[in-house]
Amino acid sequence: MLTTVDLNCDMGESFGAYKLGMDEAVIQMISSANVACGFHGGDPDVMNRTVELARSFDVGVGAHPGYPDLNGFGRRFVDMERNEVINMIVYQIGALQAFCNKHKVRLQHVKLHGALANRVDIDEELANYAADAVLAFNPELPVFVNPNSLMHKVLLEKKLHPILEVYADRAYNDDLTLVSRKLTGAVITDPDLAAKRALKMVAEGKVTTITGNEVDITGQTICVHGDTPTALNMISKIRLLLKENGVGISSFKR
Amino acid sequence: MLTTVDLNCDMGESFGAYKLGMDEAVIQMISSANVACGFHGGDPDVMNRTVELARSFDVGVGAHPGYPDLNGFGRRFVDMERNEVINMIVYQIGALQAFCNKHKVRLQHVKLHGALANRVDIDEELANYAADAVLAFNPELPVFVNPNSLMHKVLLEKKLHPILEVYADRAYNDDLTLVSRKLTGAVITDPDLAAKRALKMVAEGKVTTITGNEVDITGQTICVHGDTPTALNMISKIRLLLKENGVGISSFKR
Amino acid sequence: MLTTVDLNCDMGESFGAYKLGMDEAVIQMISSANVACGFHGGDPDVMNRTVELARSFDVGVGAHPGYPDLNGFGRRFVDMERNEVINMIVYQIGALQAFCNKHKVRLQHVKLHGALANRVDIDEELANYAADAVLAFNPELPVFVNPNSLMHKVLLEKKLHPILEVYADRAYNDDLTLVSRKLTGAVITDPDLAAKRALKMVAEGKVTTITGNEVDITGQTICVHGDTPTALNMISKIRLLLKENGVGISSFKR
Amino acid sequence: MLTTVDLNCDMGESFGAYKLGMDEAVIQMISSANVACGFHGGDPDVMNRTVELARSFDVGVGAHPGYPDLNGFGRRFVDMERNEVINMIVYQIGALQAFCNKHKVRLQHVKLHGALANRVDIDEELANYAADAVLAFNPELPVFVNPNSLMHKVLLEKKLHPILEVYADRAYNDDLTLVSRKLTGAVITDPDLAAKRALKMVAEGKVTTITGNEVDITGQTICVHGDTPTALNMISKIRLLLKENGVGISSFKR
Repeated sequence: MLTTVDLNCDMGESFGAYKLGMDEAVIQMISSANVACGFHGGDPDVMNRTVELARSFDVGVGAHPGYPDLNGFGRRFVDMERNEVINMIVYQIGALQAFCNKHKVRLQHVKLHGALANRVDIDEELANYAADAVLAFNPELPVFVNPNSLMHKVLLEKKLHPILEVYADRAYNDDLTLVSRKLTGAVITDPDLAAKRALKMVAEGKVTTITGNEVDITGQTICVHGDTPTALNMISKIRLLLKENGVGISSFKR
Repeated sequence: MLTTVDLNCDMGESFGAYKLGMDEAVIQMISSANVACGFHGGDPDVMNRTVELARSFDVGVGAHPGYPDLNGFGRRFVDMERNEVINMIVYQIGALQAFCNKHKVRLQHVKLHGALANRVDIDEELANYAADAVLAFNPELPVFVNPNSLMHKVLLEKKLHPILEVYADRAYNDDLTLVSRKLTGAVITDPDLAAKRALKMVAEGKVTTITGNEVDITGQTICVHGDTPTALNMISKIRLLLKENGVGISSFKR
Repeated sequence: MLTTVDLNCDMGESFGAYKLGMDEAVIQMISSANVACGFHGGDPDVMNRTVELARSFDVGVGAHPGYPDLNGFGRRFVDMERNEVINMIVYQIGALQAFCNKHKVRLQHVKLHGALANRVDIDEELANYAADAVLAFNPELPVFVNPNSLMHKVLLEKKLHPILEVYADRAYNDDLTLVSRKLTGAVITDPDLAAKRALKMVAEGKVTTITGNEVDITGQTICVHGDTPTALNMISKIRLLLKENGVGISSFKR
Repeated sequence: MLTTVDLNCDMGESFGAYKLGMDEAVIQMISSANVACGFHGGDPDVMNRTVELARSFDVGVGAHPGYPDLNGFGRRFVDMERNEVINMIVYQIGALQAFCNKHKVRLQHVKLHGALANRVDIDEELANYAADAVLAFNPELPVFVNPNSLMHKVLLEKKLHPILEVYADRAYNDDLTLVSRKLTGAVITDPDLAAKRALKMVAEGKVTTITGNEVDITGQTICVHGDTPTALNMISKIRLLLKENGVGISSFKR
């Protein structure tokens, strides 16, 4: 059993006059932040503030690239030429790296966003392009990835560094894909239930799927969404329950 | 007198289906390329191809950040909050650095674009912010700058690395500012005249201004615009005339 | 003295996943809505919902065009070619007109947004271009305008239809320009004070300026900002005080 | 047999400093122009100039809406929420209508662009949404549509006004879908061949498909792409051959 686990949250998704999320509060309770890079959310000023905020709470900074679609918040699949996907990801990681330079922090990881993240789990060609982007930018950079996904397989094949990520607030199918947000029960809003699921995944390596089955799962980092009304309570409950069971919150690699 | 001088050109300003410039031909005749970073022109794919192209001809790669205004091609002043300017520049340099990582070339320099470049020459506060962006990203990075400008002064104050740039195809005022494009005679289109002016600036350290005066000028890099109809001929003439007078074309620092 | 006055508020400034304002609550208390047209805020879906909302509460729909600068929320001056300004405004009015077609409501008015609105008050050339946009689209369309501004003068010269607008929650200079948001006291947040000022402007035709002087002012429509924390309370107080003094809220022309 | 047929071409796809197509030359040889509306190409200034140009040559003006994807030129499928598609189309038609107001020309038709146009031919739900956009804006507006497509069926069901469009420079499959641009032979570049195919479709109502079969086809308007190197020659050949066979070029409805 793990004695520590990483807790991550999406951050820096505001844009100009538009505010999203509760970054200042959430940052204090997590160990890794996935920072939007200006394509689906975020802008240079927001990125700057978010990296600065992460540094001040000693939270690991990750690049969170998405499709170039601010209006759809990166949740729409965009049928780009496959090789364009590499360059789009390289660009976004580089932009965030620049703010890491500015604030003298190490860029800790990459986590893909939204429709792009969903797609690479089931589309091996696209997964290869996305992995090639990390390979081209910096092959040492860990990549958050769903267990049992094609992206995981591809990262291993390319000898990159997958970090297995589990969702405290999302339901799983038996094959460990996430239940689509369009279906009932996909999102877990009860903080206590989310906390129990998080503990079970981390401590026992098991998850109860949407069909009621118990399935093996490995999680090195737990994701919680920071923009839901119950987010702060949920994250707080997860931290507490893990701590009571001897699991600390700490970035996966420091 | 110099025995070599750098010859630079803006590059990578195409965007998606929109083509601009003659990069493939121009790149073979210059020693430094200023690569657009996706805000006033360029996109991730274009940036990728342009850096690859520069590497294949051993041409130095510079970041060419501009205002976030594709429709105005970065030629419109945008009255951003002053501190936003830092982050906008940091972002763009980082994005281009990523493609340098990808193609294993060193990022050689920074050159500001369009209205942003014009503004920092006469607005000391903005010049400070722009210089701070380079300082934050990488203080070793040389910055192309007009002689006699406030930007030059600011770079020296901050112990950054200005590279003095002169324009072969633009007329100068007596104070070494460029004659506004809106005025007659601002742009020099005669290749022979441009070549003679380039030689005079480099070899004699003199320029004949729009008023007919001879004024001292120092140029470590010569800029030629690559998107004019006579660009190839002009660049070719400049190279030839310089060579005939014992000045080779070579990046300012290798 | 007026027996009715128009009460207007900016609306439909959300964008995709980004929410701004409290449109559903505010719409029930006003008589005219200035609807963002997708350049500084708003998107086609938001515009559609906002026009539908306005219709359902019988609130007049106005086009609210701004500079093409979502990241700066239209509050940055963008130094566009002057004649480009005409077409940018024509485009935005047309886009909103389309949603009026869809919901079978009449487009009631035009109100410029942010930096564009500020600029036309003091820049006669730009005011002429902005007025020409309305002239080209539909010369019958009323235009909200600050009293004593160059835009007002230009609209009269072109025989267009200015509607004089006063701000309940903004301080005035002696020349009836608005006190810059960058200065202390520019924004009035006390609902009772705002209500008293609104009543005084409408009923007595007087405003107490930032210097303490009483200056004549004429207001056919009162603007209140809908995105401040006290907005609902303020609008409510304004309505009540006006009503107690025999002034109803009603669109300026139906 | 027809005695006249409409000849249409995409127009106004330039953007700011980026020029695309040969609009000034092409406009003189066609009878209908499909004008980009600022989402996949075009901007307010370009739209203004294009409508003015069309008016000066008495060419019918159509709105040419596409996905909001300038970088992909509207050729990438974007998986928008289905009902968002209505509003995106309504917005674009309205924006172009505004320039028709400005230049006092009638908006003649609508033609969908790129990936959006391809999708509605095979996706009945999306075709319904696209048709609803026209219905909402102005049900009298004719819509260019591929024969045998689901969009055609949907337009008829909603009692809208389809205008059957055939491509002189594209190969057809047996079911009258266009051969994908990714396949060899999809695009016809030989002006004489294109002219013969155009005549055959218009005069005989037949097309030779990619498999060599002769299939019935009806065309009320012929499309030629204006941005290919041979475009001017091709359009000229088509006009000539049609004329020699007694078919004039004239907008489908004036």
